[in-house]
Amino acid sequence: MFKKYNVIVVGAGHAGCEAAAAAANLGSSVLLITMNMGTIAQMSCNPAMGGVAKGQIVREIDALGGYSGIITDKTSLQFRMLNLSKGPAMWSPRAQSDRIRFAEEWRIALEKTPNVDFWQDTVTSLLVKGNTVAGVKTSIGVEIEADAVVLTNGTFLNGVIHIGEKKFGGGRTGEKAATGLTEQLVTLGFEAGRMKTGTPPRVDGRSLNYALMEEQWGDEERGRFSYTNVELATDQRCCWITYTNTKVHETLKEGFEKSPMFTGRIKGLGPRYCPSIEDKINRFAERDRHQIFVEPEGWNTCEIYVNGFSTSLPEDVQYKALTQIPGFETAKMFRPGYAIEYDFFPPTQLSLTLETKQISNLFFAGQINGTTGYEEAASQGFMAGINAHQKINDQHELILKRSESYIGVLIDDLVTKGTEEPYRMFTSRAEHRLLLRQDNADIRLSPIGHQLGLINDERLDKVNRKIKNSDDIVAFTKSKSLNPAEVNTMLEEAGTSPLSQSAKLFNLLTRPQIGFNELKRVDSSLQDKLSGYDKETVEQAEIKIKYESYFIKEMEIVDRMKKMEDREINPEFDYRQLVSLSKEAREKLMRIKPRTLGQASRISGVSPSDVSVLMVHVSR
Amino acid sequence: MFKKYNVIVVGAGHAGCEAAAAAANLGSSVLLITMNMGTIAQMSCNPAMGGVAKGQIVREIDALGGYSGIITDKTSLQFRMLNLSKGPAMWSPRAQSDRIRFAEEWRIALEKTPNVDFWQDTVTSLLVKGNTVAGVKTSIGVEIEADAVVLTNGTFLNGVIHIGEKKFGGGRTGEKAATGLTEQLVTLGFEAGRMKTGTPPRVDGRSLNYALMEEQWGDEERGRFSYTNVELATDQRCCWITYTNTKVHETLKEGFEKSPMFTGRIKGLGPRYCPSIEDKINRFAERDRHQIFVEPEGWNTCEIYVNGFSTSLPEDVQYKALTQIPGFETAKMFRPGYAIEYDFFPPTQLSLTLETKQISNLFFAGQINGTTGYEEAASQGFMAGINAHQKINDQHELILKRSESYIGVLIDDLVTKGTEEPYRMFTSRAEHRLLLRQDNADIRLSPIGHQLGLINDERLDKVNRKIKNSDDIVAFTKSKSLNPAEVNTMLEEAGTSPLSQSAKLFNLLTRPQIGFNELKRVDSSLQDKLSGYDKETVEQAEIKIKYESYFIKEMEIVDRMKKMEDREINPEFDYRQLVSLSKEAREKLMRIKPRTLGQASRISGVSPSDVSVLMVHVSR
Repeated sequence: MFKKYNVIVVGAGHAGCEAAAAAANLGSSVLLITMNMGTIAQMSCNPAMGGVAKGQIVREIDALGGYSGIITDKTSLQFRMLNLSKGPAMWSPRAQSDRIRFAEEWRIALEKTPNVDFWQDTVTSLLVKGNTVAGVKTSIGVEIEADAVVLTNGTFLNGVIHIGEKKFGGGRTGEKAATGLTEQLVTLGFEAGRMKTGTPPRVDGRSLNYALMEEQWGDEERGRFSYTNVELATDQRCCWITYTNTKVHETLKEGFEKSPMFTGRIKGLGPRYCPSIEDKINRFAERDRHQIFVEPEGWNTCEIYVNGFSTSLPEDVQYKALTQIPGFETAKMFRPGYAIEYDFFPPTQLSLTLETKQISNLFFAGQINGTTGYEEAASQGFMAGINAHQKINDQHELILKRSESYIGVLIDDLVTKGTEEPYRMFTSRAEHRLLLRQDNADIRLSPIGHQLGLINDERLDKVNRKIKNSDDIVAFTKSKSLNPAEVNTMLEEAGTSPLSQSAKLFNLLTRPQIGFNELKRVDSSLQDKLSGYDKETVEQAEIKIKYESYFIKEMEIVDRMKKMEDREINPEFDYRQLVSLSKEAREKLMRIKPRTLGQASRISGVSPSDVSVLMVHVSR
Repeated sequence: MFKKYNVIVVGAGHAGCEAAAAAANLGSSVLLITMNMGTIAQMSCNPAMGGVAKGQIVREIDALGGYSGIITDKTSLQFRMLNLSKGPAMWSPRAQSDRIRFAEEWRIALEKTPNVDFWQDTVTSLLVKGNTVAGVKTSIGVEIEADAVVLTNGTFLNGVIHIGEKKFGGGRTGEKAATGLTEQLVTLGFEAGRMKTGTPPRVDGRSLNYALMEEQWGDEERGRFSYTNVELATDQRCCWITYTNTKVHETLKEGFEKSPMFTGRIKGLGPRYCPSIEDKINRFAERDRHQIFVEPEGWNTCEIYVNGFSTSLPEDVQYKALTQIPGFETAKMFRPGYAIEYDFFPPTQLSLTLETKQISNLFFAGQINGTTGYEEAASQGFMAGINAHQKINDQHELILKRSESYIGVLIDDLVTKGTEEPYRMFTSRAEHRLLLRQDNADIRLSPIGHQLGLINDERLDKVNRKIKNSDDIVAFTKSKSLNPAEVNTMLEEAGTSPLSQSAKLFNLLTRPQIGFNELKRVDSSLQDKLSGYDKETVEQAEIKIKYESYFIKEMEIVDRMKKMEDREINPEFDYRQLVSLSKEAREKLMRIKPRTLGQASRISGVSPSDVSVLMVHVSR
């Protein structure tokens, strides 16, 4: 009934969709198995992509040839570049999407990918031959063979939903949980754990009083995630901001004795940096209010996502507290918030390709690895899909460096350090974040995507033109000088000291107060020069000029680390013979099997003296 | 947490959506409870509305002020008027819809209905005070009060899905079943039964060879369901027709020993007139092929609905048989067909308003009453929603006559005769079908919708103009004569006998070969006359002229029956005292509690002599 597939992807959320598309676009025949063809690419939680560090990840996926950025651009109803007041390393795109459109566009994109087949069913176990995965078995009893399998089960594995004192099985509210897989994987030697996440109530936008909230509009000049030129909607929709208050907090506290979190009924750890509202008022007792983002779920629906109000308190407590928030006095809920516990597999059981160490050709991506967030999931799925294809075709694996991408940081962190609580990306996790910007993801990664075959020549040419042209602009600013008479009035107006002698445009631009916009007004040759280039190129040039010195310093650090990062270690090396290592280091090294000395140095429990021992004894 | 609602509607399929909209538009506060806000108005089976008799029902719902016609028009990708070669009583509109758009438009329509609130949850029991329903209790434990409750649970009550020898709980594939309600209703004295329905596999349109199938396009001049002027898409999508063959049948027979239908594992009866493919080859063994309609599921998706191939045979048998159908040689399935068993409540437990006799203010609509079909469900939901509102407001009930609507026939049949197998509407079920046409549903029913308040003045005016203007055209054809010289050439060309003396246009038009189109060519005054009116008005006039004599005869029959139909019976009448009635008649009459002598006469087991007894003894 089924041919043998190259790659089977289990689950069609953000991770599964990217995995299927990537493997298929590389040439693998792919079967995407989902419990429900109607729920492909559901945004289970908030209807938004991007945000700080996460937006950079979406740009990176796009630069490598993934789809998340394109789908988001096609379906977004509001776009904002966050952190514009900070340096460009912090600029982070974020978009609200129409939930229905987002799912539909993903499905269409996958259907347009000729190598992707679909099957609606629930995978209950893996077929394993020796130590290699050979396919899957499903709830209706079919066996489907494949060379590689990517598991992206999200919150579905033995999912249990909690609302106050009530609990019931489910992978999302209204949807079944999946059983069987965890139990088999444990039998196969995997360690499994339990995590928890949550989601806020959804409310009826018709019942809110927006006059009592602050409007939050998107950027006037609308940005985009994708480096391709996807058509954007011309209009944007408004979001709103409101705040909790002490009354809301008091009401919520009334429910604490029935909270599944505080009474210990939920064993799994929740996402520290995406806490429930009860967590927030508990941990930050000194704060008398918390921000609530009021986000529309789509262009046409009145459904509203109450961002910042994730909760698993009893539904009547949720309701009472909600109605004490300004603008929510007469709010009607569509459904309460809830917490969900699900199985994950500590990601130290994976290699840097996201393949499991236990079973060859078996890859894990997304929440099954203990992460949280659509972007984190999508990027893992994308990388797992690529590496599954590469592995079964004896092609080189794709491991992104920490110094070239957030995706590299994400996977290295997971695999090297593991995680005890849902892992979310932050800019602070990336030691080279100055280099990992949303503006240069294409420059950093498109050549890699092109080499793989996921980025076509045209797209690569565009990236190369952007590099060349922005360098051109930089060179122009280094060649052209202005004299005091030409610029001093403008400089004084801008609040910066006047010139006493001529200065290069370049030098003027290193002043924080001065950008291209200011200089163009006093120098028509610059105006002429810039008018020949697109917005992204000009922006790239300006960022290069203003931050070049920082970038150069950062690159020097990367180069110094390179020795460690490039020093490969034989993954089969038997650390037990190195008695000069600490016991903890030996154990951890045996388990993690680091690929480089750099990775070994980041394992918790491996001390600098252990690293020195490794330096001497370990070579590939 | 919840206010007390006027009406709670449980389930948001075709029945639930119409019920919620109708009650809300009449002024009731309505809570629509669905297990999943993401699956409102799912087309669970084929992506089409209408068809023979069913299309008439949709027109009737529209004429009364329901939404099914509007939603279908907004989302249709192909429209065909079936049976155009037969008389106008058989003309039946049918449209393919985009499955995703259909669900989305319904949801938007409901959200735009200010009195409709939403709650995502599963109702597990009813609140009952004395013999009156008082609200519902849900799976998360909330109790919500209401004056009336409409149950539209579809196939979800204790739903069990069968594929070959496998079975598992579910309300649709990939969705949970609902439990608790049946058990409570039985405790309350209701009789429950089990029915079965099924659905075909869905396949990947990219894997089909359309060159081996017949194209089936929509009508060139695209019709519509709604009497409002909803904007239609300009393009239509192609469907295809192919056929099974003896090889396919042989393959299917190989699976018979594992068939849940033939081995007795499925106890419930399935829809006789919408049989599974195994049923068809079993019951019609002499036929060496069956038609398969290959229907796209949407504008953009490649998913295909294999209409005519409903099956619950093992999935490998389904697959093998499918691939032996011309055009399906390399077909890939998205999911197998399956059968589903679910609870229903024999509808003789209802009054003609769809209120249960056992529990006041509790209404049932759709598959819970033993029907099959979106249109049957939608019309019941619509009527239940209206009657729930009318009941709790002490307003007159809405019971449509058999002589004025298919909806009247449907409900009268259900309530009076009950049903042992899924009930589907046919034109043959309506004894006055000549009068119950798709072209005059507005004339028949819009005055009723207007009186209720569901049809505004503007829409009623339009109907009245249509009546007046079509009468005007008829009068014109009765006044204007043509002489032999003017028409004989045309008549001969049309293959009908020439005139020897002048004749009225009217008389010429009663000839089957002659229509307005023919006469307009030879009479410019008719051309001028007709050009002043819209298409529907002209069509109405032509139908009146050509079939007037039949209609008059039919109306006479209706009038003769009127005495019986108008003779009301006190529903509290104690038939046990009428010893001259047969025992069976007494029992059935006590159970059904007919509202009129006409209804009593249609109860199976009530003989003409029983009716004579009733005529003498029974009065309101």
